[in-house]
Amino acid sequence: MIYPKIPNAQTVIQLCKAKKIQHIVISPGSRNAPLTIGFSNDPYFKCYSIVDERCAAFFALGLAQQLKHPTAVVCTSGSAVLNYYPAVAEAFYSDIPLIVLSADRPKHLVGIGDGQTINQKDVFANHILYSTHLKLDIKDEKNIPENEELPIIKNLEDKLERFLGFQKDIQTFNEEEILTAINQATLKKGPVHINIPFDEPLYETVSKLSVNPKVPDVSVKTKPIDNYIVQECFDYWNASAKKMILVGVNHPNQIEEKWLSELSKDDSVLVLTETTSNLHHNTFFSNIDQLISPLTDTEQKALQPDILVTFGGLIISKKIKAFLRKFQPKHHWHIDEKSANDTFFSLSNHIKSTPNQFFDALLSRVTHHVKSDYYTSWEQVKKQRFEKHQLYLKQIPFSDFKAFEVLLSTIPDYYVLQVGNSSAIRYTQLFQLNKTLKVYCNRGTSGIDGSTSTAIGSAVANEKPTVFVTGDLSFLYDSNGLWNNYIPKNFRIIVVNNGGGGIFRILPGHKNTENFDSFFETKHNLNAKYLCKMFGFEYFSADTELQLKSKLKPFYSDSEAPKLLEIFTPSTINDEQLLNYFEFLK
Amino acid sequence: MIYPKIPNAQTVIQLCKAKKIQHIVISPGSRNAPLTIGFSNDPYFKCYSIVDERCAAFFALGLAQQLKHPTAVVCTSGSAVLNYYPAVAEAFYSDIPLIVLSADRPKHLVGIGDGQTINQKDVFANHILYSTHLKLDIKDEKNIPENEELPIIKNLEDKLERFLGFQKDIQTFNEEEILTAINQATLKKGPVHINIPFDEPLYETVSKLSVNPKVPDVSVKTKPIDNYIVQECFDYWNASAKKMILVGVNHPNQIEEKWLSELSKDDSVLVLTETTSNLHHNTFFSNIDQLISPLTDTEQKALQPDILVTFGGLIISKKIKAFLRKFQPKHHWHIDEKSANDTFFSLSNHIKSTPNQFFDALLSRVTHHVKSDYYTSWEQVKKQRFEKHQLYLKQIPFSDFKAFEVLLSTIPDYYVLQVGNSSAIRYTQLFQLNKTLKVYCNRGTSGIDGSTSTAIGSAVANEKPTVFVTGDLSFLYDSNGLWNNYIPKNFRIIVVNNGGGGIFRILPGHKNTENFDSFFETKHNLNAKYLCKMFGFEYFSADTELQLKSKLKPFYSDSEAPKLLEIFTPSTINDEQLLNYFEFLK
Repeated sequence: MIYPKIPNAQTVIQLCKAKKIQHIVISPGSRNAPLTIGFSNDPYFKCYSIVDERCAAFFALGLAQQLKHPTAVVCTSGSAVLNYYPAVAEAFYSDIPLIVLSADRPKHLVGIGDGQTINQKDVFANHILYSTHLKLDIKDEKNIPENEELPIIKNLEDKLERFLGFQKDIQTFNEEEILTAINQATLKKGPVHINIPFDEPLYETVSKLSVNPKVPDVSVKTKPIDNYIVQECFDYWNASAKKMILVGVNHPNQIEEKWLSELSKDDSVLVLTETTSNLHHNTFFSNIDQLISPLTDTEQKALQPDILVTFGGLIISKKIKAFLRKFQPKHHWHIDEKSANDTFFSLSNHIKSTPNQFFDALLSRVTHHVKSDYYTSWEQVKKQRFEKHQLYLKQIPFSDFKAFEVLLSTIPDYYVLQVGNSSAIRYTQLFQLNKTLKVYCNRGTSGIDGSTSTAIGSAVANEKPTVFVTGDLSFLYDSNGLWNNYIPKNFRIIVVNNGGGGIFRILPGHKNTENFDSFFETKHNLNAKYLCKMFGFEYFSADTELQLKSKLKPFYSDSEAPKLLEIFTPSTINDEQLLNYFEFLK
Repeated sequence: MIYPKIPNAQTVIQLCKAKKIQHIVISPGSRNAPLTIGFSNDPYFKCYSIVDERCAAFFALGLAQQLKHPTAVVCTSGSAVLNYYPAVAEAFYSDIPLIVLSADRPKHLVGIGDGQTINQKDVFANHILYSTHLKLDIKDEKNIPENEELPIIKNLEDKLERFLGFQKDIQTFNEEEILTAINQATLKKGPVHINIPFDEPLYETVSKLSVNPKVPDVSVKTKPIDNYIVQECFDYWNASAKKMILVGVNHPNQIEEKWLSELSKDDSVLVLTETTSNLHHNTFFSNIDQLISPLTDTEQKALQPDILVTFGGLIISKKIKAFLRKFQPKHHWHIDEKSANDTFFSLSNHIKSTPNQFFDALLSRVTHHVKSDYYTSWEQVKKQRFEKHQLYLKQIPFSDFKAFEVLLSTIPDYYVLQVGNSSAIRYTQLFQLNKTLKVYCNRGTSGIDGSTSTAIGSAVANEKPTVFVTGDLSFLYDSNGLWNNYIPKNFRIIVVNNGGGGIFRILPGHKNTENFDSFFETKHNLNAKYLCKMFGFEYFSADTELQLKSKLKPFYSDSEAPKLLEIFTPSTINDEQLLNYFEFLK
């Protein structure tokens, strides 16, 4: 086997291997050559080459999202690492493990005007679980760099012993730092940054490893929830006739069926699930905006819960946020091993646990359900809403809303559905989805900057048929996401192209002025056709409901190349159709 | 006139106007609506709408590069601002004034799981001249937010007076912060970050300003160089027979002709100019790599200067860096008002002054030139090199090197030449350019990430015909740069497409293995044709010298659309042609 000669590169690679960090996304460069050589020559690793670091990091994020295990991105020195930042922030807020391995120049070449050199240390300080800057390897006893963070040795004769001592100190420090970073990413689920200075020569290889890093076992014991906490929750739970459970971003199959079933039987419990919660039950309410948007103040007051239990990641629905901030619950318990957001300004308890653990502790104590009409009265509303929803969609012309109805109802079973921000996911929330779909969206920062790359990464990792639904601005923003040699042939993209940022038409802006068109809606006449030609996607388009329906079958059929379906909708009526919908529901 | 209702937005906009920050690059969003409304409704401002913030910031950098005055970028909250980072770092190291105006949520909505929200405060800490986080406006006396950084008022009855006091304090604080930031950007030339929290409603407007910020005059006195410094320099200067002047990135027409002429007459002075120095004289050496690369150690020793004087920005030539680090001058003086890099580990004096001031102080004292053959002996070498250069290029096949010869020698007079990193600028350095050209390259971080956007920004600002010469990876990396409605019809792009990162073939890698092709060269079969169709560029291509020559005339002719010329070169012979060149020169 070929290894990079530089010990630090060997150590990073060996520790990644020991920690099962198998997927490595590499962007080209020279300073990172020791890592590139090492990772790409070891068949253990699945290496991907992606040039644009912004896309590379989102691609790695998509991989890690599906693997639930860290992936690594590797880049050269200079501004390369800065292009990782949007994905690093998304990983930070979405609790996705991502390891940034950035090559750097040795300290004495930083800040002196050398090319491709910036101040990489701690560059992600605001959005990182752990940052470390490794110490430079000492190559030989003649080469103990005086300007590194080491005691200075003036006299270099027969100092081999001291050199070996330093070398060992450096290796120990670096090993510990690398392990801490990887462990943090794995256990706390988020991004970490290992900045690695390399001195020239960068391309030398050896056939035998010179390092043998120790890998202590890290076992994490899940602590049971303190009894007094459970007891307190139980007391409130038993005394309350209005309990709301709200579920944000959540992986499929995370919550045990028996707890879902248990909750569904309790008339004092209302479970609201977002599209990204991947949680399904006939009694759950999956269209939150549909439920809440038409409510009068009196009705909202009636819906106000005593207890709000939340779990999962960030909440999409602005309407539920506004509602729960106005009509705050007496108790808000958030269940998460890592952290709790006070999204509704009423957080009373962060229960550091998994939802299964919590429900196990709580619901196993429950012997009878509190008498309540909380569920049943809202079930009525839900039925009415559903009927009106159906009725409304029957009568509207072709538009974003209609396009989403058609495209969402025709996704084949068991697909992974990746949804772009921002109007794409908001429209998607308005529909009851096929329960076999697994739904994901970058809701950590809710950016439009890397959804295509994330979706492709996800499709590569899980090898399942994946469809990515996005708006035109988000799609064009991450067009370099298609510059990727690993796109599976069963990958599908649907672009709903309304010629600009249609979502701004829905906001209370100053519509139909030149300034609005240019600076809010950012109107354009672009389409995805040429990008498809460039990057080898089969291209489909539709601008009527009939066309759309006729294209969907061939769109999902087996193929030798991935496919993209572009749906053109009329920008000027899209906003009305949506705003009228919420009026109609009332 | 229409103004945003929020006082903070008014203040930012009025202060930009007072400080003549006229060019505003806006990316779409809702949180930044108060700024977008304000800037775009005031005819004083030239507003540009660019969706991809990475491109938007590089476009603004290109504007500022030409204007030599700050431009501003405006974005919404969340990950948007992170996409500015590559351009912010480039601005930081290239001394280009750039003002980041990022909208943010109010503090009580940060870190609680709201959408499109990150920790924006100080996010550019490593690469920014000044960062500030404005205080949220207090809208009325009922709305003094308790969780902002303000004394808490519990009792809100008849506290109007105190409210007005707070409001004034906040306004004073914000005005001072904004002015400090703008002044820093303007005077110290670099990026600054003003983070601005806005509370809803965001879209309200008024017809009269509610703020009237004071704008104190800032006058900067240029300090003369201390006499003892000039005297010391003069003593060394007069005693030395080997003086080298090395000029990095420098705007055209910055150095007075009389000093150039004076230096050219002194046989003890050798002036080495990089392509980006925009400095021309018959006696100057403009092809540094050509001169130095073939030198033996003895010859290098003979070239070693006693005194090295440098000015301008970062140095491109790796060979001059290696040479001067090995054969260090006794004295290295760097002339720059702001900072000095110890690029050659021998910096002895940072002269805080302009080159004109320094030469005025020093050269006006010089009464006789030191007798020396330093210049004349190297002039001989220069002539030989030039002849061999011509001879070599006559005999080589079509390749990157040949393509650069043809394309650089045929750029029409008085064009602005923007060059991409990394092989594009390195090839360009090997040729004597038409002296009427003005040459620019993003050498601050030497990134390939935003050169197209920068070139377009530059073309928009100076309104002169501009040609941008780039490699294929850099061009594809910033393909969203073309998603821009302001590209002048006389803008030209030349892409030298060698099917990957050709520069890696020149480095001491492991060529012609699958790993090398994938992870270093990152081979691809992409071309620019479809991007041209998509974004309305007229497309030309060539893959032979003859074709290339025949395409150049129509390429530069007047047109209604910008044009792109793609030159395909054979990747497998490009590296040989360049490496053999340096052998041939010996």
